[in-house]
Amino acid sequence: MALFHVRMDVHIPADLDPQVRADTVAREKAYSQQLQREGKWPEIWRIAGKYSNISIFDVESADELNEILFALPLFPFMDIEVTALAKHGSDIK
Amino acid sequence: MALFHVRMDVHIPADLDPQVRADTVAREKAYSQQLQREGKWPEIWRIAGKYSNISIFDVESADELNEILFALPLFPFMDIEVTALAKHGSDIK
Amino acid sequence: MALFHVRMDVHIPADLDPQVRADTVAREKAYSQQLQREGKWPEIWRIAGKYSNISIFDVESADELNEILFALPLFPFMDIEVTALAKHGSDIK
Amino acid sequence: MALFHVRMDVHIPADLDPQVRADTVAREKAYSQQLQREGKWPEIWRIAGKYSNISIFDVESADELNEILFALPLFPFMDIEVTALAKHGSDIK
Amino acid sequence: MALFHVRMDVHIPADLDPQVRADTVAREKAYSQQLQREGKWPEIWRIAGKYSNISIFDVESADELNEILFALPLFPFMDIEVTALAKHGSDIK
Amino acid sequence: MALFHVRMDVHIPADLDPQVRADTVAREKAYSQQLQREGKWPEIWRIAGKYSNISIFDVESADELNEILFALPLFPFMDIEVTALAKHGSDIK
Amino acid sequence: MALFHVRMDVHIPADLDPQVRADTVAREKAYSQQLQREGKWPEIWRIAGKYSNISIFDVESADELNEILFALPLFPFMDIEVTALAKHGSDIK
Amino acid sequence: MALFHVRMDVHIPADLDPQVRADTVAREKAYSQQLQREGKWPEIWRIAGKYSNISIFDVESADELNEILFALPLFPFMDIEVTALAKHGSDIK
Amino acid sequence: MALFHVRMDVHIPADLDPQVRADTVAREKAYSQQLQREGKWPEIWRIAGKYSNISIFDVESADELNEILFALPLFPFMDIEVTALAKHGSDIK
Amino acid sequence: MALFHVRMDVHIPADLDPQVRADTVAREKAYSQQLQREGKWPEIWRIAGKYSNISIFDVESADELNEILFALPLFPFMDIEVTALAKHGSDIK
Repeated sequence: MALFHVRMDVHIPADLDPQVRADTVAREKAYSQQLQREGKWPEIWRIAGKYSNISIFDVESADELNEILFALPLFPFMDIEVTALAKHGSDIK
Repeated sequence: MALFHVRMDVHIPADLDPQVRADTVAREKAYSQQLQREGKWPEIWRIAGKYSNISIFDVESADELNEILFALPLFPFMDIEVTALAKHGSDIK
Repeated sequence: MALFHVRMDVHIPADLDPQVRADTVAREKAYSQQLQREGKWPEIWRIAGKYSNISIFDVESADELNEILFALPLFPFMDIEVTALAKHGSDIK
Repeated sequence: MALFHVRMDVHIPADLDPQVRADTVAREKAYSQQLQREGKWPEIWRIAGKYSNISIFDVESADELNEILFALPLFPFMDIEVTALAKHGSDIK
Repeated sequence: MALFHVRMDVHIPADLDPQVRADTVAREKAYSQQLQREGKWPEIWRIAGKYSNISIFDVESADELNEILFALPLFPFMDIEVTALAKHGSDIK
Repeated sequence: MALFHVRMDVHIPADLDPQVRADTVAREKAYSQQLQREGKWPEIWRIAGKYSNISIFDVESADELNEILFALPLFPFMDIEVTALAKHGSDIK
Repeated sequence: MALFHVRMDVHIPADLDPQVRADTVAREKAYSQQLQREGKWPEIWRIAGKYSNISIFDVESADELNEILFALPLFPFMDIEVTALAKHGSDIK
Repeated sequence: MALFHVRMDVHIPADLDPQVRADTVAREKAYSQQLQREGKWPEIWRIAGKYSNISIFDVESADELNEILFALPLFPFMDIEVTALAKHGSDIK
Repeated sequence: MALFHVRMDVHIPADLDPQVRADTVAREKAYSQQLQREGKWPEIWRIAGKYSNISIFDVESADELNEILFALPLFPFMDIEVTALAKHGSDIK
Repeated sequence: MALFHVRMDVHIPADLDPQVRADTVAREKAYSQQLQREGKWPEIWRIAGKYSNISIFDVESADELNEILFALPLFPFMDIEVTALAKHGSDIK
């Protein structure tokens, strides 16, 4: 398995149709929660004061991560930064 | 309780006495593991290829976080970046 | 209680309807002043020459701060940067 | 009177004589507290996890601010960023 | 009196109505020249090759500077950076 | 298998003992070539004019990559930037 | 022959006609694959989580590279960064 | 005479009328070539893979340079960076 | 004549011999004041809170500016940024 | 032939032995002038006010450029940035 730290910054254009916007945000939430339940997206935090999240993904590979992220309903409106994580020598788990 | 995302980048000077260095690194590890066991430092990951970690702290307050970080044996050799986290609306936990 | 330093940079699109704009700015002011009166937003300064402010928030938690900031009428037009503050050892208060 | 937002980042060289260091830090604290008592340095906060502070100065002029900052015992080891503040239209004070 | 170094970078949207644009630029020039004659805007230089200027303002306070800058006809299309100036120890004036 | 793009920028201190330096550089080369022969470091290019390389690693995991990079004889003198790669939809291989 | 490392970041405007978009993306893929078959574009990787690729080009000259890149159907929507590569002294090929 | 190094990055909006665009680009080319023939714009190179050029201007003064650059047909769509050049002590010309 | 905006940031190493330091600073001041009296360095301001100045030079050419700046006693300890100035269309002088 | 734009920023450590420094600078000059006479280094300009140059190299390949630059006597004290140049469509030469 491969662990990734992912930061997503969302920039939805101000002139996006409100119905499309609400729909996209709802689909994003459902999709995220399904991946959380499958254990592939074990952590998601809001960065206080920003339309941004910091997440941990636990997937087979960078290929799987890439497919998951490209399928995010908000993907066209996001800047995404991926960082590959390794086990830390001080980690007690 | 307050949740913080913390990135630490370590830059130990090349001319630090090797014994001091080994000692400091060992004390850093012991201190980190004690805080992990106390539940205050629930996550620590290595950024692949860098003498850096990304950690999650779960503490009473920014004051407690600040005391913990200033007490890190490697603190004088670290650049530390703290990000305040909030609960994300899509989080299922 | 938790203290945060918050910088807000406002970028209202030039083509926003002037009535919507005036309205939003008025609601922003009312909302800010209500939070100031409640003691949650104790300081707000203009950065000279910029449509930006530097503020201090005194709230329960990063969660409360995040809710307050997302509810700002100008939130969709702002870049916000949050910094967690701790007590300084030289502070005489 | 003139209000300034000042950020100070301290970088004391690792090889500074420990006695000189302790002395300089002590003089810094005394000097800061004297200016706080005189009302010229009304606020000082620690940035959580960093050897840095964010401060507010309330002085006669940029000339007075400059003299105060150059006289800081830690001045040779600091990066200082000054921002001129103006009254904010929403400020209720 | 207070001295400020101000850099203004102008970004007029390409689709601004040409008449509005010409008008705004003309009002900007008149306003700038009136402030120059009053001695509040003693210096203005073009940065070679850029729709930008570097200026010196000589005003009562950051509050007055802020009012002057917010009243610039081109203010909505400018990025402005203000630097507080102090007397230099080598200045012979 | 996992593919990573790695950039290494080397900054050997000017005052490093020349014998230590020559030794370290020689061990770096031998180590790199052994990993190339094992197929784990399939590509290495010099960035023209810089003491830097861009490399491709083909390893089991970010953990293995991290171990390999920390074991580089020049690791203490390098800034390393790792980028996780996925298969591109247009790749014909 | 000349070797170049090229990073392409794609930013297709949200309001581009979907048919034009699909068409352009399809032509981009065909064009890339033709160049891969000709050996001029030997490597293309996706940066995980980004609408970006890192590629290696093996061409006659910077002039040829420039012609190839300007002819990319997605060129108007790309930020492109070119790095000239030289043979690395440790390369065993 | 005064020598300047000028970098121009062109960003033509995607929705510019194609006829206006073609026209502007043609006038830019004619204007550049006239200045080259007059000896005021002795060098122009394409940055490989970018809609950008690096140029050398040989003019009377920064004032003349500024007039030339503001008169570029593509000026409204360009970011321009000017660097003042001096004779180098190793130059054999 | 040619007008330049010059910013100088001074970074004197902490371990410079105090006598050498005092000497260099004194020679810098004398040299600056001589150039001010000659009219070549008409303006010098301190950036409040920084060991930095912003200056205006009024010289024959970039060659003369370059010679003047390289001859600054503090030149080896300075970062210098030069900006070529042109007359501004709104300037009333 | 291949054309490259090269910027070199020189940072000689303040504590380098003055004789070694003078020697290295002299060898740098001789080496540069030999390459200028061979036509491989056709242009070199000083960036006004900086210990930096902007140069044009006209060589066989990035490999030859890389060898030339690594052989610069000042190479260990330089930051070098290489940009590959292509012929510009407006160039009349």
